[in-house]
Amino acid sequence: MNHRIAVIPGDGIGKEVVPAGIETLEATAGRFGLRLEFTDFGFASADYWQRHQRMLPPDWEQTLRAFDAIFFGAVGWPTVVPDHISLWGSLLQFRRTFDQFVNLRPCRLMPGVRSPLADREPGEIDFLVVRENTEGEYSSVGGRIFEGTDRETVLQETVMTRVGVDRVLRFAFEQAQSRPKQHLTSATKSNGIAISMPYWDERVAAMSQRFPRVRVDKFHIDALAAQFVLHPEWFDVVVASNLFGDILSDLGPACTGTLGIAPSANINPDRRHPSLFEPVHGSAPDIAGQGIANPIGQIWCGSMMLDHLGHPEAAAHLLGAVEDVLALGPKESPLTPDLHGIGTTAELGNAIAERVRER
Amino acid sequence: MNHRIAVIPGDGIGKEVVPAGIETLEATAGRFGLRLEFTDFGFASADYWQRHQRMLPPDWEQTLRAFDAIFFGAVGWPTVVPDHISLWGSLLQFRRTFDQFVNLRPCRLMPGVRSPLADREPGEIDFLVVRENTEGEYSSVGGRIFEGTDRETVLQETVMTRVGVDRVLRFAFEQAQSRPKQHLTSATKSNGIAISMPYWDERVAAMSQRFPRVRVDKFHIDALAAQFVLHPEWFDVVVASNLFGDILSDLGPACTGTLGIAPSANINPDRRHPSLFEPVHGSAPDIAGQGIANPIGQIWCGSMMLDHLGHPEAAAHLLGAVEDVLALGPKESPLTPDLHGIGTTAELGNAIAERVRER
Ligand SMILES: CC(C)[C@H](C(=O)O)[C@@H](O)C(=O)O
Ligand SMILES: CC(C)[C@H](C(=O)O)[C@@H](O)C(=O)O
Repeated sequence: MNHRIAVIPGDGIGKEVVPAGIETLEATAGRFGLRLEFTDFGFASADYWQRHQRMLPPDWEQTLRAFDAIFFGAVGWPTVVPDHISLWGSLLQFRRTFDQFVNLRPCRLMPGVRSPLADREPGEIDFLVVRENTEGEYSSVGGRIFEGTDRETVLQETVMTRVGVDRVLRFAFEQAQSRPKQHLTSATKSNGIAISMPYWDERVAAMSQRFPRVRVDKFHIDALAAQFVLHPEWFDVVVASNLFGDILSDLGPACTGTLGIAPSANINPDRRHPSLFEPVHGSAPDIAGQGIANPIGQIWCGSMMLDHLGHPEAAAHLLGAVEDVLALGPKESPLTPDLHGIGTTAELGNAIAERVRER
Repeated sequence: MNHRIAVIPGDGIGKEVVPAGIETLEATAGRFGLRLEFTDFGFASADYWQRHQRMLPPDWEQTLRAFDAIFFGAVGWPTVVPDHISLWGSLLQFRRTFDQFVNLRPCRLMPGVRSPLADREPGEIDFLVVRENTEGEYSSVGGRIFEGTDRETVLQETVMTRVGVDRVLRFAFEQAQSRPKQHLTSATKSNGIAISMPYWDERVAAMSQRFPRVRVDKFHIDALAAQFVLHPEWFDVVVASNLFGDILSDLGPACTGTLGIAPSANINPDRRHPSLFEPVHGSAPDIAGQGIANPIGQIWCGSMMLDHLGHPEAAAHLLGAVEDVLALGPKESPLTPDLHGIGTTAELGNAIAERVRER
């Protein structure tokens, strides 16, 4: 099996954790007889911006289309280029152009990682946030009227389409159906947001007809956010609009203490376009350049990428190696400072790669 | 000092906790030489709906206008009347008609109340969410086109006005300025929601010019939700749009373990209209009728009402009595089952009223 992977390290710690991600992917490929071919790109970074005054080359779309997946580090370096330019000019552009309409973020307690919640054990919390990734509340449609006066009024349009809503719901129901608990939770706010959210609820009800084995419930986003803290063990698959999914997929990993190591997959399930895998943590200017960034988010992304490419066993093997190394704790594993260890990015990456080969 | 208070117990446990709220308010009034005159109303309830097929009498506005404040229990009884009717027909109607443009929700660790967060002590978490309460994302403007086809598209309008945004920001800055930490956090999502949230950010920046002593920061709502779990001790006053404020003011009390006893004040700061005080917990059909509902949310509302009516010392005295009774724990205080005690609503209300008279 041969896969071509585009690698975009981006900015800050993105450049430090991507090599560790590749090392562990190569180790896993070795174990499972896969061939992964990596090609590096320097665009979608502040360095590129400084040289070209844009985030991407004109032919970026054609270039990236030739790959089976994009392995992404982090983008954003606000002292050089404002975030709204670097993000809308790269990451958000990729999501829409490549129709990566599902954003998938697992939330689980990992061995050896301290959760801010009291008295929780690994295994107790393990759910998946499925976020709509191309429409909804993320929109630049709207405008201002009576500008600069006391009557100034701003309109901001949320746009939902049947195509857009149904396809992400279908994906979420399929995920739920394939898991032991077969439980899907929908995030809504139809008691306050009176047009779009009742529509979302209607489409959930319609789709659930086709998945009779999946138990469905819905929570208003305010109550749901509260339950992520109070009863995270209730959830299995959670499906949400672009904005609600954005909130829940930061809140979930915060509850499990894994915000610094959480992965995210921007997926085009049709496979007509390449999907993109990036850790949630971002470029982290405060610790960049010190070689101490935790590479586990990037490595976990590698596992999700293997799964997406059709290798669930290899994906599980790699994630298992991560868990083994975490479980040994900072005395026996070279864990990075955020995990109370004294290891470097490279040492932790090495240890996980070695564990991949051994286990 | 004489104040006329309209009392609307509403549905479910609303009817059980309101008497405890009144008892403790009367005890406090006695201590501070205030005269509170309570008048009961049966509307805004499922009972009223069953008799009249509407939530409110035609002259409700005129009736309630004669009062200095509204002391509200809970509304909602979905087996009799759907939530969107009971809520838009009462609570949301009051907010808009009486221009209660600030929704105020304190989040603090209370003695004797277990927080779901590990290793937190009372005093460590104590912040205030100031929510815009009349416009923004809560809107019924918008609609559907190409209905029933594959091209079905739904538009939902968020509406922000300079008047609406500036007045809630001014209130929040004033609150921040009057507190020791003088720290205001603004919730935004200007990196994704491209029209309304950049406008919100601009108005925050403009208003901060007038409050040079207040330290201001802003977080995107995804990161902010995560920080409520990871670092709730960072926050002092948090200001947010209608939707973001709704989410944060459920999430905050969830983090402090006080969701079941949290108060909320729907305030018209101009005092041209009556303000409304209601606990966050709702009508709780699952425990209604058993006499075991925790009345502290309602009592805490009473404290906020006294503060709003110009009696901050009486307000603090009442809240202090609540804290004293909580601190004694379930062995010495008749705490309700949610606080691991065996007390009833009435017993806990009595104990707090007694403490008000003693302390
Ligand atoms: C019931 C609902 C419409 C309401 C709201 O969203 O405002 C509630 O959640 C609240 O916060 O008071
Ligand atoms: C950076 C930002 C625009 C982005 C988003 O909101 O989608 C990020 O928070 C994420 O979740 O990937």
